Amino acid sequence: MDEFARIARFFAPLAGEAGLGLKDDAALLMPPPGRQLVLTVDQMLESVHFFSHDDPAFIARKLLRRNLSDLAAMGAAPLGYLLTTALPASLGEDWLERFAAGLGEDQRRFGIRLMGGDSSSARVDISLTATLIGTVAPGEALPRNGARAGDEIWVTGTIGDAALGLEARRGALADPTGDLTRRSLLPEPRLGLSLAGLVTAAIDVSDGLVQDLGHICEGSGLGAELWAGRVPASPAAAALGPDYLAPRLTGGDDYELLLAVPPERGEALRAACGLLPVTRIGVFRPGAGVRVVGPNGAPLDLASPGWKHF
Amino acid sequence: MDEFARIARFFAPLAGEAGLGLKDDAALLMPPPGRQLVLTVDQMLESVHFFSHDDPAFIARKLLRRNLSDLAAMGAAPLGYLLTTALPASLGEDWLERFAAGLGEDQRRFGIRLMGGDSSSARVDISLTATLIGTVAPGEALPRNGARAGDEIWVTGTIGDAALGLEARRGALADPTGDLTRRSLLPEPRLGLSLAGLVTAAIDVSDGLVQDLGHICEGSGLGAELWAGRVPASPAAAALGPDYLAPRLTGGDDYELLLAVPPERGEALRAACGLLPVTRIGVFRPGAGVRVVGPNGAPLDLASPGWKHF
Repeated sequence: MDEFARIARFFAPLAGEAGLGLKDDAALLMPPPGRQLVLTVDQMLESVHFFSHDDPAFIARKLLRRNLSDLAAMGAAPLGYLLTTALPASLGEDWLERFAAGLGEDQRRFGIRLMGGDSSSARVDISLTATLIGTVAPGEALPRNGARAGDEIWVTGTIGDAALGLEARRGALADPTGDLTRRSLLPEPRLGLSLAGLVTAAIDVSDGLVQDLGHICEGSGLGAELWAGRVPASPAAAALGPDYLAPRLTGGDDYELLLAVPPERGEALRAACGLLPVTRIGVFRPGAGVRVVGPNGAPLDLASPGWKHF
Repeated sequence: MDEFARIARFFAPLAGEAGLGLKDDAALLMPPPGRQLVLTVDQMLESVHFFSHDDPAFIARKLLRRNLSDLAAMGAAPLGYLLTTALPASLGEDWLERFAAGLGEDQRRFGIRLMGGDSSSARVDISLTATLIGTVAPGEALPRNGARAGDEIWVTGTIGDAALGLEARRGALADPTGDLTRRSLLPEPRLGLSLAGLVTAAIDVSDGLVQDLGHICEGSGLGAELWAGRVPASPAAAALGPDYLAPRLTGGDDYELLLAVPPERGEALRAACGLLPVTRIGVFRPGAGVRVVGPNGAPLDLASPGWKHF
């Protein structure tokens, strides 16, 4: 099955109008009038971002969701995407079928369509890249660098499940409910919250809570105090006990939103998040760097500030 | 040097306003009012699309130019790009410096800026992907499927140099002037021609002349007769003699424009191309498939219709 047959069979059915049947040189679309465009790209590489034996449907969905999370962190609504694949010749049609099924599932869920892409053979490892296109009302894009001293640090959902889930998938810890594993395989992008005017800075937690908080601090010229004991844990993560606090704070792949919020906007933020829990976990201060305060009030020393891929 | 230091040193200086200093989750831009957007993506992989020892500046420029050529084939003008890199840890700073210099050179030449991207470590091979964003006036995008029986087949520039240049780089043929090698390393995207209303179909010659002509035929529900003796050769290609006709017709990477043109528009097409030579090389007919007629008038049998990567 050559490149063109593969595109026609597995990918053309996923294409929206802008994709021109995936037969043209490029995608063509009229941008929604009066909106700004938001563009983001993220790749997933075999043995770096996923295991060779992972279900291709979950790889596809995580590829889209990582990018959708970047749009969420900008306050943008998704429109569509371009897909780039480099696949070893040995890869079977089953793999492609499951991969395309995963794309189709999340296209429906998030209201997006495939607009175009590129495919190539690869020598060894599978390489996947998605470019997501979204839009936002002018002036409503959430910045990364707007936090002010005294703003509070808030985070959606729970933190650390994905990193613990990865350890579970590697056999390094038990995950009796499967919740941690699921969070590692299938993050939930926090799209659709109306945060413009409520937050002064936003980022999605992809590299790890402490490291991503550091990005807001750098961009905003501030320091931060992070209250480790307040960082929300899922029941599955909490059940592992306090030994797993540090990896939860430094692990990546959660795709929750980390927000800087003026103190008087906390209640409005809660209202905007509706059923999605959102938790206050610290405060921005003049200075630089992230100071992590442990549950006992003493500074917590974290071995590594960031996320290392397995 | 970690990912963030690498971005700050080599890539942030290339970023335009939409790139937000390459510090945010995504690029943000206001699309030019009243224009359609054109989006295309193309990847270049080590040992598939380039040799490990190739000059990184030329790899960078070819990455941009392959994508710019896709915009040219749509009649679009470029705006900016996103860049995705997966680089082995062993890659030195020299490589990155040359790569960024090549990007900077062609950014200036084509008036584009870096808007964002993604970077990752790679296990073995370098993997590079560029997403190009362009615009076109509504209704002026050049289609791939609009050719009509009786339309003539035209092509810009000369055909086959890149494929012969690749053979020269592999040591399989002599290239005394270096012209063929240069065409293989550095294609010239045919941007800026005003072809809307003059052509009924357009594609860039990336997979090989015969194969790309076949794409227009399929899209348009037509056959084509290609006059091999009329396919324009550069002086360097012509000097190799008639044995190299078939590889010129099937080799890829030329990035010239292949056009379907109603007979009465030939002169207007020449005028629109100005100093860029454009040559009539065949005609579209009812039916299907590409019939290649040799210089002696007899059908020419080509071993392979398409381009194989080395």
